[in-house]
Amino acid sequence: MPELRKDPIVGRWVIIATERGKRPTDFRTEADDLSKEGCPFCEGSEGKTPSEIFAIRNPHTHANTSGWEVRVVPNKFPALRIEGEMEKMGVGIYDRMNGIGAHEVIIETPRHDQKMEMHSIESLAKVFEAYRVRIKDLENDLRLKYVLIFKNEGSSAGASLTHPHSQLIATPITPKRVKEELVGAQQYFEYKDRCVFCDILVEEQRAKLRTVYENEHFLSFCPFASRFPFEIMVLPKRHDPDFHTLSSNEILGFSDVMRVTLAKLAKALNKPQYNFVLHTGPIRWKRRGYWTTIDQDYHWHVEIMPRLTKVAGFEWGSGFYINPTIPEEASKFLQEAEV
Amino acid sequence: MPELRKDPIVGRWVIIATERGKRPTDFRTEADDLSKEGCPFCEGSEGKTPSEIFAIRNPHTHANTSGWEVRVVPNKFPALRIEGEMEKMGVGIYDRMNGIGAHEVIIETPRHDQKMEMHSIESLAKVFEAYRVRIKDLENDLRLKYVLIFKNEGSSAGASLTHPHSQLIATPITPKRVKEELVGAQQYFEYKDRCVFCDILVEEQRAKLRTVYENEHFLSFCPFASRFPFEIMVLPKRHDPDFHTLSSNEILGFSDVMRVTLAKLAKALNKPQYNFVLHTGPIRWKRRGYWTTIDQDYHWHVEIMPRLTKVAGFEWGSGFYINPTIPEEASKFLQEAEV
Repeated sequence: MPELRKDPIVGRWVIIATERGKRPTDFRTEADDLSKEGCPFCEGSEGKTPSEIFAIRNPHTHANTSGWEVRVVPNKFPALRIEGEMEKMGVGIYDRMNGIGAHEVIIETPRHDQKMEMHSIESLAKVFEAYRVRIKDLENDLRLKYVLIFKNEGSSAGASLTHPHSQLIATPITPKRVKEELVGAQQYFEYKDRCVFCDILVEEQRAKLRTVYENEHFLSFCPFASRFPFEIMVLPKRHDPDFHTLSSNEILGFSDVMRVTLAKLAKALNKPQYNFVLHTGPIRWKRRGYWTTIDQDYHWHVEIMPRLTKVAGFEWGSGFYINPTIPEEASKFLQEAEV
Repeated sequence: MPELRKDPIVGRWVIIATERGKRPTDFRTEADDLSKEGCPFCEGSEGKTPSEIFAIRNPHTHANTSGWEVRVVPNKFPALRIEGEMEKMGVGIYDRMNGIGAHEVIIETPRHDQKMEMHSIESLAKVFEAYRVRIKDLENDLRLKYVLIFKNEGSSAGASLTHPHSQLIATPITPKRVKEELVGAQQYFEYKDRCVFCDILVEEQRAKLRTVYENEHFLSFCPFASRFPFEIMVLPKRHDPDFHTLSSNEILGFSDVMRVTLAKLAKALNKPQYNFVLHTGPIRWKRRGYWTTIDQDYHWHVEIMPRLTKVAGFEWGSGFYINPTIPEEASKFLQEAEV
């Protein structure tokens, strides 16, 4: 059973994933398997993954066989496990709890080389439909507080398999970074009686200095205080704390903005490695009959972070980021990349 | 002039280092200069760096010539600049300020290949003496709030030159990560009337499960909630918020604990790349005649973070870390490494 441990100074929870099998000596060499040979995510290799949790597939086909478009399976080396009791305890002066949660892989395509930006709008919309279905399902687990979906593209972005996939980790604790956004957004709302994300949307549409791409439902832009060169935020125009309330039409719009934005990034910077994270509202009691302010003050979004610079001691030690690229220049460069 | 920009959601400040010359196209290839040929930090190449700010050198030698043991120079490509006015302004709904601060390089040795753990105790103590002198000096600048010293060892840890050096960045804002520690330590003190770091020290000495090395003045150990495999904290036994109040005798003890701890790391993991950061108390008004609680509740320390795993989307998006190595196993492995 993995365990969660709490840092007694800053209150940060860490997952000690004891079952991932990294013994001290394992770090001496670390090689990624980037070949198509033996890829467990390709069509025809369904038996190499744990049993599928969800799939969008030809109705005449069976689970765990060919004939699918998107497939969701449990991670074979999960950081958190869905089975077990939510035990919390003290250890000396420290705090720990069992590593309850979920760790799933969303296989975006049966084709080994079809990057996210190479999908059609309709086909990519099915990937995001899978996100939505999984978030909605996991919300019913009373032990969970948050569902985080993210993507690691490329080995320096942390991917250990090249076949296009996203990941989902559901946690029994609201993650620190999300909590910071929730607190910040709430403070802003208390002060201004407006959503900070809605204000950013208006400001970006007015200034037109950092836009990457815009369609009917979404805006993508380089944030004013970007931590990384070419960092991009994708913001829905309709205020909503939760990703999974998207209409089918909005999902097509989301598919469009993601496709174009990622294609521009690939074109402008020659297919950089990147991470993206989906920040949606936390699982909350409101949906179980209690009231919170989150519906008014929080606004779901995606953060895309190309891995172009190295994060070093200063960033780790300070939480301060040094970004050598002016966001206004980055967005201009991306705007001009024709796709 | 570099600028500081504030994220309107979480309040994180970012340095946009416009003068570091990273144009969009510069990211297409990025190679480090790791050779001894033309190294600007070697003895005899003093003319290749900006003029020295401080040096420990043979009294019969002149500044910016050979004959030194430790040498501090301004960073040639500074993230922040010491010259200029502390101008703060709004830009649309956003906040920015001029990038005032200091960015210095502490060249630890005239010898290109002398890693930190290869120094004698006395010789390494001179490096830490340079840290102390620079912190004390920068505290007199009323525009500054914090002095962060850190080290990037190896190119994946962010070092662009191999010659052993540490860096110092002084900022006009208390960095977010430090503020989190200050707030956490203060809350703990309010609740328990004890310093959380002192309590950790007692707990680690009692449990003896995570110790790496101990001497009269210092303890190094793998933290209970380590974010990274083989993460190590070095904690002084005497409670003090500030590094620069160390006595000469204590500096020798610090030199010993750092040497042995880094040597164990090098031995056990075959010279891994790493970062370390020195977290000392912020520059504060108390020293200028005002009172704060920091003297009671904060405790300086060093965090050593080997770069063994890749930080990916999940970590960036959540602030949650997945650590595949149990701290109790890591410390055992380090204890057993004979140096």
